[in-house]
Amino acid sequence: MSEPTARVLSGIQPTGDVHLGNYFGAIQNHLALQDRYPGECYYFVADYHALTTVHDAKALRQSVRDIAITYLALGLDPARACLFRQSDVPEVTELTWLLACATGRGLLERAHAYKDKAAHGLPASMGLFCYPILMAADILAYDASLVPVGQDQLQHVEMAQDMATHFNETFGAGAVVLRRPEPLMSKAPRVVGLDGEKMSKSYQNTIGLFLEGKALRKLTSRIVTDSTPLGQPLPTEGDRVLALLDLFLDERGREQVRGWYRTGARDGQPFGYGHAKALLAEHIETHFADARARRQHLIDHPEEVDRVLAEGGRTARARAIDTIERCRSTCGLR
Amino acid sequence: MSEPTARVLSGIQPTGDVHLGNYFGAIQNHLALQDRYPGECYYFVADYHALTTVHDAKALRQSVRDIAITYLALGLDPARACLFRQSDVPEVTELTWLLACATGRGLLERAHAYKDKAAHGLPASMGLFCYPILMAADILAYDASLVPVGQDQLQHVEMAQDMATHFNETFGAGAVVLRRPEPLMSKAPRVVGLDGEKMSKSYQNTIGLFLEGKALRKLTSRIVTDSTPLGQPLPTEGDRVLALLDLFLDERGREQVRGWYRTGARDGQPFGYGHAKALLAEHIETHFADARARRQHLIDHPEEVDRVLAEGGRTARARAIDTIERCRSTCGLR
Repeated sequence: MSEPTARVLSGIQPTGDVHLGNYFGAIQNHLALQDRYPGECYYFVADYHALTTVHDAKALRQSVRDIAITYLALGLDPARACLFRQSDVPEVTELTWLLACATGRGLLERAHAYKDKAAHGLPASMGLFCYPILMAADILAYDASLVPVGQDQLQHVEMAQDMATHFNETFGAGAVVLRRPEPLMSKAPRVVGLDGEKMSKSYQNTIGLFLEGKALRKLTSRIVTDSTPLGQPLPTEGDRVLALLDLFLDERGREQVRGWYRTGARDGQPFGYGHAKALLAEHIETHFADARARRQHLIDHPEEVDRVLAEGGRTARARAIDTIERCRSTCGLR
Repeated sequence: MSEPTARVLSGIQPTGDVHLGNYFGAIQNHLALQDRYPGECYYFVADYHALTTVHDAKALRQSVRDIAITYLALGLDPARACLFRQSDVPEVTELTWLLACATGRGLLERAHAYKDKAAHGLPASMGLFCYPILMAADILAYDASLVPVGQDQLQHVEMAQDMATHFNETFGAGAVVLRRPEPLMSKAPRVVGLDGEKMSKSYQNTIGLFLEGKALRKLTSRIVTDSTPLGQPLPTEGDRVLALLDLFLDERGREQVRGWYRTGARDGQPFGYGHAKALLAEHIETHFADARARRQHLIDHPEEVDRVLAEGGRTARARAIDTIERCRSTCGLR
């Protein structure tokens, strides 16, 4: 059966340089969804959310622009996916208030992300505490039906579901004023970092997407391996270089590299970690070559990025205005 | 010294029929301020705030209209005071988010109003918890310098001061992006209700402002007094009828009525509580006669009310847009 009204919504954090973990964990999925739901994908750069941690205006402006460029460089097609700045749709903050009036405080107290951040010593600002309401408003403002998430963000969608239900019951006598979204669980591969931990900016173990040449080879050479000498069979279980190589290889390629690992040789020559790391660098450089070129083009033509964001903002805002007008009327603000 | 840039801001709760307590406690002061700060008074009907407790769209619409009519009937002059609906300036919800990102959760935990309401069993919604942030946004959005408050609302202004400071420090490196407001403590008389408690809708002891004739006399006859028989001297200390009469009398009138109380006689005739109550009814009816007529006119000409609110909304919104643009730029959203 077709899904004529499916609509995808996802937020993008404007946080510094994008790495392989971001790409294989989320971006690739976002790009696949624009093929599956053309014209119904809404991706916003979460600058309102960023204010809970970023208190440097210049840095925020730069990182919002950087992430937009990254998505466009990697293949986001504005004709199929609406890319916009969260703050170009201030209606989400109004919806945040309306949701807050129908949301019990207890729901927020149970938010994992808040508890985690507070436990890690991040100052407990009200923005951080209210984060899930704004996130719910972001989802609900566009009548999104599908929210791609990993396991760790599932709770946010569940909270948005709860808030939609509470709002509909509190103000709408149960009528469906706000559409209930569903999570779209993604099967993203686990991307390990240089040290074998999950690749994450906060662990400083990342490999940037747009690195090339010597800088890239220098970085891949830092991937932690065991001390198997050159020419000896390499372990195929638990090796980080192989895990990263797998991200770029098809079934046949994976088998081939595993053959070199198992024998410690390639085409009759010794094959060791150094060769594997160089191979990884080569794959990264090749895989993102087109994206790197497009990225440079966009850096040189900022007006193209501005145009995409402005147009995306207009499209998204029109949808949000529909929703907020419906909500205002339901609440008695009109 | 003149105060060229003083600006007054106050919120008006759209809660049902207005009574003598509202009038002498707040409205009279609001009207006096439009004489003192002509063109610089901003009074908004707090419909966003009302959503924390009012979940009936029709009732909210009606009570917003009612309170606007009441203010206009009592003498609010749109040429000197800007009267508007809070929700006609959605920018305050955006400012609420920006403030939230610079406000510690602890500040909100210390809010009296929230603690009181939660203690009285009101469901602890996020709206209720975040109430002081929206209230601060309402003050700060218009660059208000003076907020008329009674003792029980002083904390709200103090919280707005704190949030302005936190915002300026967090995002503006200490520059004055948001103006720090000051409380304007009003010396409103304590208005007792029918039972001698503070006149308040929640005590069901109120006397409506626009009552007249038999309904009004019936209500004043219900004021609780002692059982001094007719013709005997009446106590002038602690008597509720006298306390209410005082609100309408000048110094000479007060002395005159006290004479009747002390002698239990007026012009040679016995004077008892019944006469005092009838006199009070007469004063109320006379004092608000013009306002009653204007009120009826406005009820019959709703378009006049709509026009005032629409124009007030435009004026207020223009100011708020100035402020929010300044804040957005400070935060890096532009």
